[in-house]
Amino acid sequence: MTYCVALRLNAGLVFLSDARTNAGIDQISTFRKMSIVERPGDRLVVMMSAGNLAITQAVRQHLAETLESDKGILAAHSMYEVAQCVGEAVRFVYHRDAKALQQFGIDFNCSLIVGGQIGTERCRIFEVYSAGNFIECAEEKPYLQIGESKYGKPILDRVIRPETSLGDAAKCALVSMDSTLRSNLSVGLPLDMLVYKTGALEVTHFSHIDATNAYFDQIHNTWGEKLKEVFSALPNPVWTETSAEEARLVSLRVGNSVETRPTHSIQTLAGQQ
Amino acid sequence: MTYCVALRLNAGLVFLSDARTNAGIDQISTFRKMSIVERPGDRLVVMMSAGNLAITQAVRQHLAETLESDKGILAAHSMYEVAQCVGEAVRFVYHRDAKALQQFGIDFNCSLIVGGQIGTERCRIFEVYSAGNFIECAEEKPYLQIGESKYGKPILDRVIRPETSLGDAAKCALVSMDSTLRSNLSVGLPLDMLVYKTGALEVTHFSHIDATNAYFDQIHNTWGEKLKEVFSALPNPVWTETSAEEARLVSLRVGNSVETRPTHSIQTLAGQQ
Repeated sequence: MTYCVALRLNAGLVFLSDARTNAGIDQISTFRKMSIVERPGDRLVVMMSAGNLAITQAVRQHLAETLESDKGILAAHSMYEVAQCVGEAVRFVYHRDAKALQQFGIDFNCSLIVGGQIGTERCRIFEVYSAGNFIECAEEKPYLQIGESKYGKPILDRVIRPETSLGDAAKCALVSMDSTLRSNLSVGLPLDMLVYKTGALEVTHFSHIDATNAYFDQIHNTWGEKLKEVFSALPNPVWTETSAEEARLVSLRVGNSVETRPTHSIQTLAGQQ
Repeated sequence: MTYCVALRLNAGLVFLSDARTNAGIDQISTFRKMSIVERPGDRLVVMMSAGNLAITQAVRQHLAETLESDKGILAAHSMYEVAQCVGEAVRFVYHRDAKALQQFGIDFNCSLIVGGQIGTERCRIFEVYSAGNFIECAEEKPYLQIGESKYGKPILDRVIRPETSLGDAAKCALVSMDSTLRSNLSVGLPLDMLVYKTGALEVTHFSHIDATNAYFDQIHNTWGEKLKEVFSALPNPVWTETSAEEARLVSLRVGNSVETRPTHSIQTLAGQQ
């Protein structure tokens, strides 16, 4: 599995991807899922991929081969056209491979995030689906995720806003990744992180994070500890006696009857009765 | 969708379920997913269900109809036999309905958690699958989840141990539910929570939690705020200059070349250089 996340802030963009691939639990490898196209002073484009590795590598190869053509990423006038290039590459691979995959019962399954900045256009990020169609990330939900996205979503929802700083956003992406690593073994180190400041038009901040990275280790340990501290500081429930009418238990009896009996219930704020 | 979680602690059991069901986003209803069988002084059995509502209601109906028979839940000598009863009920419904469902392209999809205590046996919880087979919750991972389980898993992994108190466990289940409610609209209030103390052999603590519940509201607000505080207190990354060899960017060029160029990278602990 894979987990990739891209954040779109007013200050710029953050891209983070893991590098674990598995074809069954007994075949786990490391493949980097972030690819970069850079023409300093003109454009920076970052692509991340999830799904069937043979498909996403074929998409990547097609994009690399057409890179300098007049329909390639370097010729695109906007990030929208870049997303179209990626969509077309997905369709190219689909037409070539999907039928053969189908004969082996394999779905044509890939998803990609592509983002960056071209010239004076604003920073943009897109998610491209298996059908080659795509959506753009909007103000209201300033991030996109592909792969194993659920474990790491709650912290993004709580923290990320368009006005979040790049430092906070990079940190939040790493916390989101940490929760995912902890819960799904098939997402794993090393990580690739690229932080892009609006207007830079080149790679300025890029980190390949492995098990020896002191900062990620610090995030990993501190976050877990602090979370437990916060949890301990939350008040425990206070149970008070209730009348039969208040406690409506669903009993497993014919007729789905709701049973009413006195019990203890949580009604009040902790510390109050 | 649904989210149900059951925790097995040394001190007892905690069961928590939401009550939202949806058949498409435009058809959302409230159905309670927790059912209770109680014979005070002898046994307490709690069942929670996820999956196709018609299937799980049929399973529930079958269990209710056979409740007092010699193969029913009230006749079971152990929680293992209770899990077998539930598995048999699933198979009964499968044999009756699966073919007709298949003709409409509908999977036979249900999962159930059943747990409790009978007599002097220890507290046990089981997860029953669509095939009627089941697993028991073990020491090493003292909880079971069904339905939309991923958003709420990280906090359980971090906090729940067999020695966790019932108060902490109830609180943790509610935090886990809160993260799920926040991230998936199809999981929703009201909740049913039952907290069972080993040896009680009856319902003593049961709470039906709706939007007016002061304690859940307190958990919901405090957890979100404190999480953001902890996040803010974590150090931001410090970027230091790296040589060309250190920053190994994967460039989108033919041949999958790794590009080496000087950039800034996160290498050190925050606060150190």
